[in-house]
Amino acid sequence: MPYTHYKTPHLAQFFPIIGWLKTYRRQDISDDLFAGIITAILLVPQGIAYAILAGLPPQLGLYASILPPIAYALLGTSRTLSVGPVSIAAIMIAGVLTAPEVSALGNPVQSALILSAESGLMMLLMALLRLGGWVNFISHPVLAGFTSGAALLIIGSQLPQLVGLKAPSCGIDMDCYPHYLSDANTSTSLISILSLSLLLFFGKPMTTLLKKSGVTLSLVTAISKCGPLLVVILGTLAVNRFNLAEQAVAVVGNIPSGFPKLNTDFIDLQKGRLLLPYSAFIALIAYVESIAIAKVTANLRGQKIIPNQELIALGVANMVAAISGGMPVAGGFSRTMVNFSAGAHTQMAMLIAAGFLALSVIFFSPWFADIPKPALAAIILVAVFRLVRIKHIFHTWNYDSADGKAELATLLGVLLLGIEEGIALGIVLTIVCHLRKTSHPHIAIVGRIPDTEHYRNIQRHNVETWHHLLLVRIDESITFANISFIEDYLDAELKRRPDTRHIVLIFTSVSDIDTTALEALELFNQSVQASGKTLNVSEAKGPVLDKLQKTDFIEQLKPGKVFFRTEDAVKELG
Amino acid sequence: MPYTHYKTPHLAQFFPIIGWLKTYRRQDISDDLFAGIITAILLVPQGIAYAILAGLPPQLGLYASILPPIAYALLGTSRTLSVGPVSIAAIMIAGVLTAPEVSALGNPVQSALILSAESGLMMLLMALLRLGGWVNFISHPVLAGFTSGAALLIIGSQLPQLVGLKAPSCGIDMDCYPHYLSDANTSTSLISILSLSLLLFFGKPMTTLLKKSGVTLSLVTAISKCGPLLVVILGTLAVNRFNLAEQAVAVVGNIPSGFPKLNTDFIDLQKGRLLLPYSAFIALIAYVESIAIAKVTANLRGQKIIPNQELIALGVANMVAAISGGMPVAGGFSRTMVNFSAGAHTQMAMLIAAGFLALSVIFFSPWFADIPKPALAAIILVAVFRLVRIKHIFHTWNYDSADGKAELATLLGVLLLGIEEGIALGIVLTIVCHLRKTSHPHIAIVGRIPDTEHYRNIQRHNVETWHHLLLVRIDESITFANISFIEDYLDAELKRRPDTRHIVLIFTSVSDIDTTALEALELFNQSVQASGKTLNVSEAKGPVLDKLQKTDFIEQLKPGKVFFRTEDAVKELG
Repeated sequence: MPYTHYKTPHLAQFFPIIGWLKTYRRQDISDDLFAGIITAILLVPQGIAYAILAGLPPQLGLYASILPPIAYALLGTSRTLSVGPVSIAAIMIAGVLTAPEVSALGNPVQSALILSAESGLMMLLMALLRLGGWVNFISHPVLAGFTSGAALLIIGSQLPQLVGLKAPSCGIDMDCYPHYLSDANTSTSLISILSLSLLLFFGKPMTTLLKKSGVTLSLVTAISKCGPLLVVILGTLAVNRFNLAEQAVAVVGNIPSGFPKLNTDFIDLQKGRLLLPYSAFIALIAYVESIAIAKVTANLRGQKIIPNQELIALGVANMVAAISGGMPVAGGFSRTMVNFSAGAHTQMAMLIAAGFLALSVIFFSPWFADIPKPALAAIILVAVFRLVRIKHIFHTWNYDSADGKAELATLLGVLLLGIEEGIALGIVLTIVCHLRKTSHPHIAIVGRIPDTEHYRNIQRHNVETWHHLLLVRIDESITFANISFIEDYLDAELKRRPDTRHIVLIFTSVSDIDTTALEALELFNQSVQASGKTLNVSEAKGPVLDKLQKTDFIEQLKPGKVFFRTEDAVKELG
Repeated sequence: MPYTHYKTPHLAQFFPIIGWLKTYRRQDISDDLFAGIITAILLVPQGIAYAILAGLPPQLGLYASILPPIAYALLGTSRTLSVGPVSIAAIMIAGVLTAPEVSALGNPVQSALILSAESGLMMLLMALLRLGGWVNFISHPVLAGFTSGAALLIIGSQLPQLVGLKAPSCGIDMDCYPHYLSDANTSTSLISILSLSLLLFFGKPMTTLLKKSGVTLSLVTAISKCGPLLVVILGTLAVNRFNLAEQAVAVVGNIPSGFPKLNTDFIDLQKGRLLLPYSAFIALIAYVESIAIAKVTANLRGQKIIPNQELIALGVANMVAAISGGMPVAGGFSRTMVNFSAGAHTQMAMLIAAGFLALSVIFFSPWFADIPKPALAAIILVAVFRLVRIKHIFHTWNYDSADGKAELATLLGVLLLGIEEGIALGIVLTIVCHLRKTSHPHIAIVGRIPDTEHYRNIQRHNVETWHHLLLVRIDESITFANISFIEDYLDAELKRRPDTRHIVLIFTSVSDIDTTALEALELFNQSVQASGKTLNVSEAKGPVLDKLQKTDFIEQLKPGKVFFRTEDAVKELG
């Protein structure tokens, strides 16, 4: 019974929306409507806040919340992923836009749109090359360390906003602490404190309170997610009422009214080339974050995510973001969980949310001008705070110390070296550890179990051995990664058994010998022959023998031989 | 019988010279003397030529041939490695010195000495961190492609020298061809042609001729290796006799007479920091080249190379090079083969060669001024030509196509992207291919062989199976690298067997489950439970169970269980 995948290519494979629309039930719509509204309530302040976090005009975040989630809804395989601006991509964009070589070219809005377009293209390229599976080589501990580190960077970047410090570069550096007291703006700080208090109250305390008073669970969810919107509304009212904008409270400022015009005027080849490596990193992180949260929610409902189709959906969503004037998008951790736990059944919820965003851009954008930035900073702070999971490092370390070290190294790398450098460090570290593990294959000296033709490990079984004969079973394919370990093992064994005259390598578990291994075996054979011994091989599989027969290795072994069975070798040499 | 290395630390471990001096026989000295003289005859022109190839004054090559080989002779584990200036390091140094940010700082001699000192320090650091074994992750095909590519670059760099073109940057670019005809210098071209003819004649033709006339083999070796020296002598005489230096034939120029003064004045922290990444690459390549050729010659005589001790020996040799005013050193491919085949038994040969070099620097350096550069270019050309092994790529490809592709990619990378970039590309490619292979572990659906408690692959054996029970044996440790493949396999099997109610994962061959795999198994368990099935585990080894018991995975499995034996699982669920 061969193991095959049967694939029927049909339209629903390219447009997963067809799949769920066919079975869409009437009761689904009420759940999706509810979840869509809740998510929209969250998306408006998040869209504005993440655009500002990235150092961009607020409309880039709002525009990224309209057409891109619609594109994803048509193409994506996750039923509940909420695609739009996300905090980690935002801090990466901020880093790119403030890099000297990028800021020197001016026009950050254009740069952001190029980043959207290019990261979209990168994802489509990855889909074309079917690289979706390679994301598995970013291990979970590295991803967790990266998320914590990026969240800490975001928190650091918001602290000056909270007290209204002028220097935007002042973060969590030691030298800044005095400024937090001396240069703090009173009105700004007051707004921040009130916003934070309100947001924190809308968390656990209010949910507990509401549950106690017997409010239905879905209403509790709905109310508890309104915190950010309420903070924005109250903050805006306060700015209007007390003329706070004149008292040095930073506000969002004018947002162009109406729907964004679709265009591709932002294209600039020179700038594009400069931004390409950054785009690749943003694409990688956006994809990894999206697929991780998509998998979690899909598993909870026994649904299935198709990595390559996700690349296509997210790639198109990002290109749509660029064309409709939006910043790069991804599936957000917290927003997707809100959408999921608000009861979203399908991407209909996100279509509804996108509709609300479109309405708010068309009708409410003049009202957004007076939103105080400290209120947005408070929203970001509360949103990303739960991404910082320092304790998780200890849990990981406790379970697997190598993983724990990789997680800590990634976190420290992100904080001390930079976002891209940090995750690169983590990926390299895990791969290096993995290579080190795979370069130590299992090898056993074997002997014959009496009265059988069965050969087993001499350390575990009572077996016959022969004085001049060394039988070695290598339990893995022989490659550049482990040949040196194998050589050292054989050398050490030969030293311990100076009377050995014949060595037989048993290849039952060897399914490949690569070029490096072959050349090393040839050298090993030379040194074996130089000391008057012979090297032999037994039980080589067909494909391995075919490969060896293309070379003169078997010729070189002479007087050593290739035996069909270990038993034959023992009969002749034992 | 546990597998241990017994180590007795004694002086001979740190100074391998003590080991071979103890058993040094009288007849060895005559062989070593002969080999030493032959190697010295080769070293003088090579030292000058490789220094000029690197864009440095000739004495840096000569000084690098005196004290560094002595340092290696005291510390190295190879009996025949000839340490000194090498062509591949020279072309790498040339690349560094002409890089805009390095040449802007001026004083190339100082830069070269810093490269020597830093690459020495790097090697010692690698030794300290016991990274000697990591060199195994540079596979042989990558190394072969790299060598061919670097040799082609060297050949390209020497073509303008052969005809006396002014523009030293003119190599094998298309635009240059017309210049080779129009701007060629007649005297220079004549010297080149005569030098090349003489060198080629000293190769195969003369050896055949001498062998036919019954000359002894050792004399044939000796005479055939005198080609470069003869070319240098004849070239110098011609320059003197016909006043060629006035006819635009480039000559070596004055070399300071006498022995180099030892000093560390070259140290410059700012420059040092700039050169550090280059030094790391030179250290890596120097070490890899040295260990590769050391292993080949050692195996031919059944001797042993100790990688970490080699790092120490080469590290000290390079630091000695810096202090004595020499360029970076390594073990040279061709020179070591000459030393070996001339009959060198021990490093005594290299001590003798170094002595000759010292004498030549002290007494003959005024004579070196008139050596024509085209003659040196011819010597380099002939020396590196045999490093270009295009056919080798086809051999490799024929044996293992992935290796062949890696070799070709490395060669093209070196030619088109640069030396460091090329080898980095090759290393990354082989590791990526290796990861892809290891991420596809063997998995088998098993059943019970009737009347036994033995479970085997259902595809190969006649076994009992149970309708609602899926027994899956995973034949490798479960890690971030393969968990996704395992999940996909299980999903596909569950789809093909919709009646499955219980899944049992048999962990006989699983010796580790890392954090990523654990989290994925938790998610898989959630989706299994969401579809009303149970996930179970059997035959988990002690260490794996210990790790799992630190988590609540076993708790999460409920009503799924952890069974001691597969048989128990079948009794309860079958």
